[in-house]
Amino acid sequence: MAVPEQGGRMPYFYNTEGRLVQVDYALQAVGRGSTTIGLKTKQFALISSQVKPTRSLLEPAEKIFEIDEHVGATGSGYIGDVNTLIDELRLTAQRHRLVYDTPIDVVTLLRGLSQYLHSFTMYTVRPFGASIVIAGVDELGVQLVQIDPSGTNFKGSGFAIGQYADEALETIKNGYRPDMTVEQAIALTTEAVEGVNGGRSQIEHGVVRKDTKKFERLALAAAE
Amino acid sequence: MAVPEQGGRMPYFYNTEGRLVQVDYALQAVGRGSTTIGLKTKQFALISSQVKPTRSLLEPAEKIFEIDEHVGATGSGYIGDVNTLIDELRLTAQRHRLVYDTPIDVVTLLRGLSQYLHSFTMYTVRPFGASIVIAGVDELGVQLVQIDPSGTNFKGSGFAIGQYADEALETIKNGYRPDMTVEQAIALTTEAVEGVNGGRSQIEHGVVRKDTKKFERLALAAAE
Amino acid sequence: MAVPEQGGRMPYFYNTEGRLVQVDYALQAVGRGSTTIGLKTKQFALISSQVKPTRSLLEPAEKIFEIDEHVGATGSGYIGDVNTLIDELRLTAQRHRLVYDTPIDVVTLLRGLSQYLHSFTMYTVRPFGASIVIAGVDELGVQLVQIDPSGTNFKGSGFAIGQYADEALETIKNGYRPDMTVEQAIALTTEAVEGVNGGRSQIEHGVVRKDTKKFERLALAAAE
Amino acid sequence: MAVPEQGGRMPYFYNTEGRLVQVDYALQAVGRGSTTIGLKTKQFALISSQVKPTRSLLEPAEKIFEIDEHVGATGSGYIGDVNTLIDELRLTAQRHRLVYDTPIDVVTLLRGLSQYLHSFTMYTVRPFGASIVIAGVDELGVQLVQIDPSGTNFKGSGFAIGQYADEALETIKNGYRPDMTVEQAIALTTEAVEGVNGGRSQIEHGVVRKDTKKFERLALAAAE
Amino acid sequence: MAVPEQGGRMPYFYNTEGRLVQVDYALQAVGRGSTTIGLKTKQFALISSQVKPTRSLLEPAEKIFEIDEHVGATGSGYIGDVNTLIDELRLTAQRHRLVYDTPIDVVTLLRGLSQYLHSFTMYTVRPFGASIVIAGVDELGVQLVQIDPSGTNFKGSGFAIGQYADEALETIKNGYRPDMTVEQAIALTTEAVEGVNGGRSQIEHGVVRKDTKKFERLALAAAE
Amino acid sequence: MAVPEQGGRMPYFYNTEGRLVQVDYALQAVGRGSTTIGLKTKQFALISSQVKPTRSLLEPAEKIFEIDEHVGATGSGYIGDVNTLIDELRLTAQRHRLVYDTPIDVVTLLRGLSQYLHSFTMYTVRPFGASIVIAGVDELGVQLVQIDPSGTNFKGSGFAIGQYADEALETIKNGYRPDMTVEQAIALTTEAVEGVNGGRSQIEHGVVRKDTKKFERLALAAAE
Amino acid sequence: MAVPEQGGRMPYFYNTEGRLVQVDYALQAVGRGSTTIGLKTKQFALISSQVKPTRSLLEPAEKIFEIDEHVGATGSGYIGDVNTLIDELRLTAQRHRLVYDTPIDVVTLLRGLSQYLHSFTMYTVRPFGASIVIAGVDELGVQLVQIDPSGTNFKGSGFAIGQYADEALETIKNGYRPDMTVEQAIALTTEAVEGVNGGRSQIEHGVVRKDTKKFERLALAAAE
Repeated sequence: MAVPEQGGRMPYFYNTEGRLVQVDYALQAVGRGSTTIGLKTKQFALISSQVKPTRSLLEPAEKIFEIDEHVGATGSGYIGDVNTLIDELRLTAQRHRLVYDTPIDVVTLLRGLSQYLHSFTMYTVRPFGASIVIAGVDELGVQLVQIDPSGTNFKGSGFAIGQYADEALETIKNGYRPDMTVEQAIALTTEAVEGVNGGRSQIEHGVVRKDTKKFERLALAAAE
Repeated sequence: MAVPEQGGRMPYFYNTEGRLVQVDYALQAVGRGSTTIGLKTKQFALISSQVKPTRSLLEPAEKIFEIDEHVGATGSGYIGDVNTLIDELRLTAQRHRLVYDTPIDVVTLLRGLSQYLHSFTMYTVRPFGASIVIAGVDELGVQLVQIDPSGTNFKGSGFAIGQYADEALETIKNGYRPDMTVEQAIALTTEAVEGVNGGRSQIEHGVVRKDTKKFERLALAAAE
Repeated sequence: MAVPEQGGRMPYFYNTEGRLVQVDYALQAVGRGSTTIGLKTKQFALISSQVKPTRSLLEPAEKIFEIDEHVGATGSGYIGDVNTLIDELRLTAQRHRLVYDTPIDVVTLLRGLSQYLHSFTMYTVRPFGASIVIAGVDELGVQLVQIDPSGTNFKGSGFAIGQYADEALETIKNGYRPDMTVEQAIALTTEAVEGVNGGRSQIEHGVVRKDTKKFERLALAAAE
Repeated sequence: MAVPEQGGRMPYFYNTEGRLVQVDYALQAVGRGSTTIGLKTKQFALISSQVKPTRSLLEPAEKIFEIDEHVGATGSGYIGDVNTLIDELRLTAQRHRLVYDTPIDVVTLLRGLSQYLHSFTMYTVRPFGASIVIAGVDELGVQLVQIDPSGTNFKGSGFAIGQYADEALETIKNGYRPDMTVEQAIALTTEAVEGVNGGRSQIEHGVVRKDTKKFERLALAAAE
Repeated sequence: MAVPEQGGRMPYFYNTEGRLVQVDYALQAVGRGSTTIGLKTKQFALISSQVKPTRSLLEPAEKIFEIDEHVGATGSGYIGDVNTLIDELRLTAQRHRLVYDTPIDVVTLLRGLSQYLHSFTMYTVRPFGASIVIAGVDELGVQLVQIDPSGTNFKGSGFAIGQYADEALETIKNGYRPDMTVEQAIALTTEAVEGVNGGRSQIEHGVVRKDTKKFERLALAAAE
Repeated sequence: MAVPEQGGRMPYFYNTEGRLVQVDYALQAVGRGSTTIGLKTKQFALISSQVKPTRSLLEPAEKIFEIDEHVGATGSGYIGDVNTLIDELRLTAQRHRLVYDTPIDVVTLLRGLSQYLHSFTMYTVRPFGASIVIAGVDELGVQLVQIDPSGTNFKGSGFAIGQYADEALETIKNGYRPDMTVEQAIALTTEAVEGVNGGRSQIEHGVVRKDTKKFERLALAAAE
Repeated sequence: MAVPEQGGRMPYFYNTEGRLVQVDYALQAVGRGSTTIGLKTKQFALISSQVKPTRSLLEPAEKIFEIDEHVGATGSGYIGDVNTLIDELRLTAQRHRLVYDTPIDVVTLLRGLSQYLHSFTMYTVRPFGASIVIAGVDELGVQLVQIDPSGTNFKGSGFAIGQYADEALETIKNGYRPDMTVEQAIALTTEAVEGVNGGRSQIEHGVVRKDTKKFERLALAAAE
């Protein structure tokens, strides 16, 4: 099936191999973002994101966001895209409280974001250049999910996105233990981020715990 | 009829051979998805889908979805596309219950999805990069159908989509017996999936039975 | 009038010879469809369509559709397109009953479909890749019509569309007799289809009769 | 003024010579249509259109259309386009009766069609690939007009459109006499059509007369 | 500023020299139209337009149009475009009478047409391929104006548009005298048109007079 | 960052150097317009615009426009564009009187035009090919501003736009004296326009004075 | 992943490296803007912007804008874009006062502008070619933020945008002291701007103070 001539001139979404090229390119934008990690045990979920090396007189960018009392999120990729998706998550959570008068569960929150991201892959607009990691707690317990520019989502106990994500994930996989404490987890994600970025990094953390059912951003100092 | 010059510059849907090229490319996306099988006897319909080899700390993706009490579905292709189509099926089923106060029959469900998929082939948007297999039971008995990105649908007793679908289908055709039990069917679809993917795969199954008139997802362990 | 340069870059519908190229390409899609025949006498109209060679475990696709009690249709080309046009015909027929409380006549049904198809040739969408043959009976008697992707329609006593349509039509023309019985007609369309497709084909038939004023799909077995 | 580079990339309507290229191409589509003639005297107007050589088992296509009691029309070009324009004319005539309770006059009918055709030359849609000849009678007497894809219209006593239009028109001009009878006129248009199409053609005729103020389609046999 | 590469690919309106290329091409369409003249003295304004050499059995096209009792207009370029603009002028004049209960003045009429034409140069539609000359009388006296495809308008005592406009204008300029009679003016415009078109032409005239405050189309015979 | 391949095919607004190319081209259109000058002292503001060399029988185009009692404007570039912007200014001024019952101040008038022009640079339409100079008097005193196709505006005591603007501005800068009289200013702008256009030009002037708070167009004769 | 062929023809937002090319080009437009500085201590925030070297008879452009009593802003890039964003900020601030009856806080103001800018990167319009620096005081104290064309924003104590921004920022970083006075800060930003622009520049300043909670534009003379 070689139709290079006309094939190439219509407003193509798929390339000849059936790949959504703009989505692939958006993933490359994610791959340039700051190294970002998610880690979950039965007791808590931790999200950690490197704050890109900054300069003097510049406040470090916020990388860990509270979505609702019981949910936090972080992301990697184009900062404007990450922020827009975080806003979208917050809006979804608030609407849920307004309509149902209960905190949103993680799966519903996740599905909303997936649909939102997916719709930007169907039309002649651009897909978002950002992946998001959500940490939350609901009736099903502690939850950790990753959503990609195509709207694809994953559940698990350990994720890494952004620069050198693969190498960082290796560190997480090797050091992960189901009975870790939050402190041990922070030490591990710190090790993972610093390992791939060449030493001492500024890292922001957020944790949601099964017992408190609350998400809290940790002071940046915690990582130093 | 050789009009390469202008021919190539308009927003072409058809190529010079009368093929819908974006639909063909979308099918290639399906061909890269996880191997997915549908198998039907008079007593039951089974849908089985390989859970793509995952890594530690990652929960296997859900591949078998309940659409309604009496209908389940699976798919192969872009995950975001599969999920969107599953949502569309669920919505159709719910609307039907709401409006008619009866469970939706498989043909109506199928037609709705076909029209939805077809409409994305007519305009300057992209066709979905996913095929779906639906298993259900209604007044006409047990039903198994496959729907492709163009909205084309097929009825039958054995389907395979995704990677190495042709080879997997051979295994199904050879091992199929109209009086199989669910357990034998699971063994057969497992054999088909593992045969083409090089041994031991993680496979999710779902079954709908004539007697119970219910669809149920089977624990992943069933395949091990 | 040689304006190859700019000519080629605007969203062209016509090529330099005044041909609607996308419509021509759509006709090529029809030419790849299953061989499909329409045949009419004063007493009945028969539509016959080859069911494309299928594989085991796959139910043959439905090729003959009842539109209303007194009208049936078949088509050739992209299956998703055929199905959408069949739905459109059914909708038109139902609306007519609802509004006028009488069965729709074939000319009105035909005109509706022609306008629908034509409108898809005027804008930057794609024309349908399917031709349709309608067989019906109304106050004017038995009717047989063919509609092409451009919305052009023909009335007559013998049509063939799809693969090898020209050769199949030759067989029909040679064997046609105004006083044929339905059985003889079925034998003739079967001969026409099998002749071009290399022997024994699975063929679905539908017939509408002047006396009963009803359309009925014939069991596939009739052709064997 | 040589601006080949950018010139070519915007959605051009005009080419560098100031010609509307899509309209020119649409006229070429008309030039491939069946030879069609209009002829007028003070007493009547006749429209005659070759029914393209057909095959056995195919009913000749209708080429002469009644628009209203006192107006008929014919056309040449893409059949789907001709039919759509005929429908447009009928709708305009009916609306006029509904709103004003009088039969529409030919100039108003003509202007409506011209505006309709013209609007399809202004935007990024395609112009119609058909020319229309209208014959009618109103308070101003017998009228004969031709309308082209650009919406341009002409009044006169003799027109020819479609294949070999120029040659056919020569025959008309040579044989025309202001005091012809309808029969003589039919003989003349028949001669004109057959002369350019190589003998014995199937021709459909329609005539509107000053005395009856009615348009009537003539049986095809009249031309044989 | 040489940006040939990207420059060329966006939907350009301006070329690299800052010219509106589609407007320039539209002017070329005007330049192929029939030679058309406007001539004004304090007592009257005359508009004269060559009726393109026609053939037998074809009524000469109307080239001089009454817009309102006190205003007439003519045009050159694509006939469908000229007619649409004439309709626009008539509509504007009628609306003015309806709303203000007074005849429209020429400047208001002119401004409406200019805005209408201009708006078609701003978006991705095509500019009109026609220029218009308006002759009217209002409280400011006799008026003569020309409007081009870009919406640019001119006031004056002598205009020529269409084929060989420049040469025709020379004749007008040389022969013009402020105290001409209508008959002398008609002789002059006739000479101008015939001079550039090679002798004896069919010309239509229209005149608006200060004393009668009426516009009237002159019989074609007047020019012979 | 060399992405010539894809880079070039999307609907680019910026070129690779970050320049808005259509705006740059629009400025070139302005640079071909008639030489136009604005000059301001504390007592008055003068706008002067060359009336492009005209021919006999053509009235000079109006180049100086009253916007409201206390504001006048002129412009250079595409005449249709200038006129549309002048209409926009007049509408803004009238709306302001209607809503607030006070004459509009120059800054508000200017801001409205800037936003209007700017919006045409953001979407896939064309920017206006015209610059405007406004002279007005309000509570802040005499004001003179220039607005460019991008919506950028400048305040000052001396401006020149159109052909040979830079050279004309030199003349103004050299001859400017804060205590000039209107007559001296007219002499200076006349000198500036004629200096670059090769002698004796037809120039139109408009002046707004601090004492009268009125704008008035000066008779063309004043410049001779 | 080398898909140069089709890849290049769709309406690309991302290039093959996953970069938003139009946003990158917009940033180059910012890099040509006037050198603009923001500087913050606990007591005040200062924004300073070079007024591009102007000519005689031209008033220096306003570069420092009051958004609300307690907030000021400046920007660099296309002037029309800067002005539009300033208007957007003012509107947001006014709407906030109207709806909540309190002055807007800097974070809310910032988020509104970020979303506005971001939305122009998602569709087929152009991103703004301007970056903005906002200085304000609210309940969280003195605040200084920078927003880029992509909607990305930064908080900090020292920013530089526009021409030679990197070099200017070096000067700021070297000279910055947390206990500076406003006068010292002005001297520093002046030094930074003049250092990169080659001596004596016209610079506009604006300052917001913790004690007064007011923003004020400083007279230009302050910098001389």
